[in-house]
Formats: sequence, C-alpha cells, structure tokens
Amino acid sequence: MKFLAYAEAGAEGLAVETEAGFRGLREGHPRFPGRLESLIAANRLEEAAVTLAKGDPVEADKVRFLPPLRMAGKFIAVGLNYRAHTAEGPYEQPDYPTLFARFASSFVAHNQPILRPRASVQLDYEGELVAVIGKTAKDVPVEEALDHVCGYSIFNDASVRDYQRRTPQWTPGKNFDGTGGFGPWFVTADALPPGCIGLTLETRLNGQSVQKAAIDDMVFPVADLVSIISAVMTLEPGDVIITGTPSGVGHARKPQLWMKDGDLCEVEISGIGVLTNPIRDA
Amino acid sequence: MKFLAYAEAGAEGLAVETEAGFRGLREGHPRFPGRLESLIAANRLEEAAVTLAKGDPVEADKVRFLPPLRMAGKFIAVGLNYRAHTAEGPYEQPDYPTLFARFASSFVAHNQPILRPRASVQLDYEGELVAVIGKTAKDVPVEEALDHVCGYSIFNDASVRDYQRRTPQWTPGKNFDGTGGFGPWFVTADALPPGCIGLTLETRLNGQSVQKAAIDDMVFPVADLVSIISAVMTLEPGDVIITGTPSGVGHARKPQLWMKDGDLCEVEISGIGVLTNPIRDA
Repeated sequence: MKFLAYAEAGAEGLAVETEAGFRGLREGHPRFPGRLESLIAANRLEEAAVTLAKGDPVEADKVRFLPPLRMAGKFIAVGLNYRAHTAEGPYEQPDYPTLFARFASSFVAHNQPILRPRASVQLDYEGELVAVIGKTAKDVPVEEALDHVCGYSIFNDASVRDYQRRTPQWTPGKNFDGTGGFGPWFVTADALPPGCIGLTLETRLNGQSVQKAAIDDMVFPVADLVSIISAVMTLEPGDVIITGTPSGVGHARKPQLWMKDGDLCEVEISGIGVLTNPIRDA
Repeated sequence: MKFLAYAEAGAEGLAVETEAGFRGLREGHPRFPGRLESLIAANRLEEAAVTLAKGDPVEADKVRFLPPLRMAGKFIAVGLNYRAHTAEGPYEQPDYPTLFARFASSFVAHNQPILRPRASVQLDYEGELVAVIGKTAKDVPVEEALDHVCGYSIFNDASVRDYQRRTPQWTPGKNFDGTGGFGPWFVTADALPPGCIGLTLETRLNGQSVQKAAIDDMVFPVADLVSIISAVMTLEPGDVIITGTPSGVGHARKPQLWMKDGDLCEVEISGIGVLTNPIRDA
C-alpha cells in the first residue's frame, strides 16, 4: 500500500493508491481515519486503506504534498553507512552506526523547495532510504528486526556542510529550516522486498546522476540498524530511521558542487518513487 | 510559579506550588487545565495556575513525579558549554554551540532510578540547567532571546561514555533508556533571574560534591543559545534546550568514577530545586 499525506482547502488529507489512482479523505470528514502517525501507532493501516479507497479522487500531480510523518518521538539519521561515502568524507569507517537527529522543523514535502540558508552556500544533497517503525522494538535480535518495520519512504538529508563541521556534532548543519526533503509517499513494508534489499537509490541534480548505489551496500542494513539501535533505546511505533547516504555528495567533489537557487534535486529509490525538490534561496 | 507533573491512580496530574503547598488536578477532572506541553503552546500557564491552586492538596514527598515535559519537537542538548569541562574532555573549545539530541524515550523523572545498561559500566553524571521555549523563535537577536523562554528545570544528562565515543556522533551514549533525569519541577522564568544568571549548579554523588559551577560560566548563556539556534532552526513552544554540564564528570577523573547500582545522584540548582535519582542496574 502507498499512502500520500496532503493538504487541501486548509485541511490535512490522507490518500491511498488504488487501481483507479489515489483516493483519499480530509480531516473533518466523518470517515477520515486519522493521520499516518496515529494509524501506525494503532496498527490500523490496512483498515484505513479500505476506508480511504472509498474516498474522493486525489490527483497526485496537482495536490500539495505533506511530509508523510511530522510527529514522532525520534527521527534518527544515520551517517557513514556506505563505505564509499565514509571514505570520501574522509572518515574512518566506524564499527557501529553513526547516529544523529533530524528534527521535524527541518522537513519539507515532495515538490516543496529545499531552502539554501542565507548563512551559507554549502548546501549539499544526500539521498536516503527511510524506514518507519511499526511495532515497539527493545533489544530485538537482527533476525526479528524487520517485523518491527511497517514501511519505507525517501529522504533528502540536505546538509549545510560548514555548519555540520563547525563543532564535533553535526546537528546544526543537518537541521536548517527547509532542508529535509521527505516523501513523496509512505509505502508499506509488505509491498517491498524485506529491508529494501535489491532496490537501488539514485540522486539527480538538474537531471544529472550524482549518487547511485544499491541499498545492499549499506554497512548496517535496515535490520541491523533496528536491532542495534533497539539495544540502546526503545524504538516506538512511528519512530523514523533515515538510513544514510551513498557516495557522490557535492562537498567531496573537485570542484565542490553546491545546490543553489533554481536547481532541481531528485532522489529515486526503485519500487518506492521519486522525491523531487526545487532549490530556492531562503 | 512552580509546576509539578505527577501520576496518581493511573492518571496524569499537574500541580502548582501555593503558600499552602502543592495543589493539583488530574486528567479526567472537569477543570484539569491540560498538560504542561499544551499549556505552554497555548500560553495558558498563568490561567492554569489559578485553576490548579483551587485543586486538591498534592504531597510532593509522596507523589510519583513525571518528567515535566515528554512531548516536544526537539529536546536539544548542548555539549562543551563550560570551558573547564571542555578542557577535561579533552576537546578544543568550539566557537559555536555543540548540539545533539536527547530523545524523550531516555527520560526518567525525579526519584525514579537512572539505569546503568547491561552493555556498559561507564555510566557518568552530568548536571545541567534546562531552558524551555515559550514562544516561537526564528532569527531572534540575543537581546530579545529570553522573551522566548518560559521557564527552567534541571537535567541529569547521564551518559554512557564508551557508546558516546564509539562513532563521531554522541547520540547512542546520550540516549540509553532510563538515563536522562529530568525534574523535579518546571519553574516559570518570571520566578528566576533572567537566563538564570547568578544561580549555581552542584551535582552530588552519594552526598559528595562532584560538580560545582556558576551558571554564569556557560560559554553560551541561555540567551545566546536561543539566538544562535534560532538562526538555524525554528524553536517552537515546548522545545527544550539542555544547556550543558560543568567540569567534574566521572570519566575525566583519576581514577575514573562511574555510577553504579545503589548510588544516589542529586543535581541542585539554587532557586530551582534538587533533582534526585537513585542508580539501578537495568
């Protein structure tokens, strides 16, 4: 199942893909089943899909998208999770996932502009796979970890490099307002291969391929991430893991390649979709 | 005003300090004004205090405390914010705040045990001042920054040092379940000096003073933190800044001093209160 969160007439809506295109309902409608966050928490995605499929047609090429999820206890991002990207850093490859936070205040939806802040020109792209927790995970063995993942999406972890490296912690460079592209949709895990193994990720800047990798190349695949993180902190339904970016980022190129006003950045993951964001000056 | 979030008879309650002790109401009561998060978001703290003061007596030495806030878009922690602590790291003092995330899944309330995880013995204390955002802050100049802070509390940013230093990012060592002591209460800004300047912080382990500093010693005082962070990301009502710890942490001592089952850790900030947590093995 493929869910689309959107805004229309001042209300938030949720749609599901059907054979006849997307069908959805808006908040305020008596049959609106709830936002994705509450459907995931209540394990009601399937039931909601049945209800939404009887809703109104939603034109995905016309509607205003919202980030699929905006409320969660944790949006955990992973760094250095593809060896070639770690090397281009240059960093040493850690033997443990490199974790930092993306706050929802930085998110922008599919088709919304990613903003280059006034404070910096070093705005870089990072195409990434998103995994969403569907069931509480604490001390979960790796072989059971994917049972705790309810679905996937796409992220552009756009980073302001000088701010990322200004202190030992990357948080500011990863959290400028309007820099985290998220979407276009939330695809349930049953519609994709386990852990998205076999899928490929490509980032394109103005149509030019700048990152291309197999999801299989992750140092810590989704199942490992869920298992390892759950040994530290309880993962709760709706928590989000943004799984890291492959090599090819702009700051490691010679000459360096920064995103700027007028650019268009796309992140495609086979089987999931294409996340598109124009770049604008803040 | 001093607010206390508590749990009683399976319901959450909120109390306010009066001349006759704490008085409060529980969820489900027709006059319950809401949780602190919603009161801060709606700028209704004063009105709620009037209502709560007519509530039932709440015995602060008997009631089960809750962390004052558990839902927020961001719990932002600050590292390396006292020069002597930066030096004991040892780290170089950055010219910009060192920011990382504490997720609410790691919080424990006043009097609840801080848990030493099975995975490590390197559990360290970090006494800190907490500032809570009361009004949306974006690009706020430093001289207006404190207008955006509605109150303060105390945090024990207990850290699992080997996990903190396992990769370039500190997140796992700062987010083990049951390691973030938070409380005992939320004190409104009007009851304290601006930015808590003039207050002192002391951490005691089993009654022995292990950290002692003036809040004035912060490299980036509260006003600077709000201003600098707001230039990167929009701070929203209820967002929390955990402002960093002074020198004296256990990992920098010779011999190193780790918290263990049976210990008692207290963090006191003059004018705010004493946050007390026993230490237990997870």
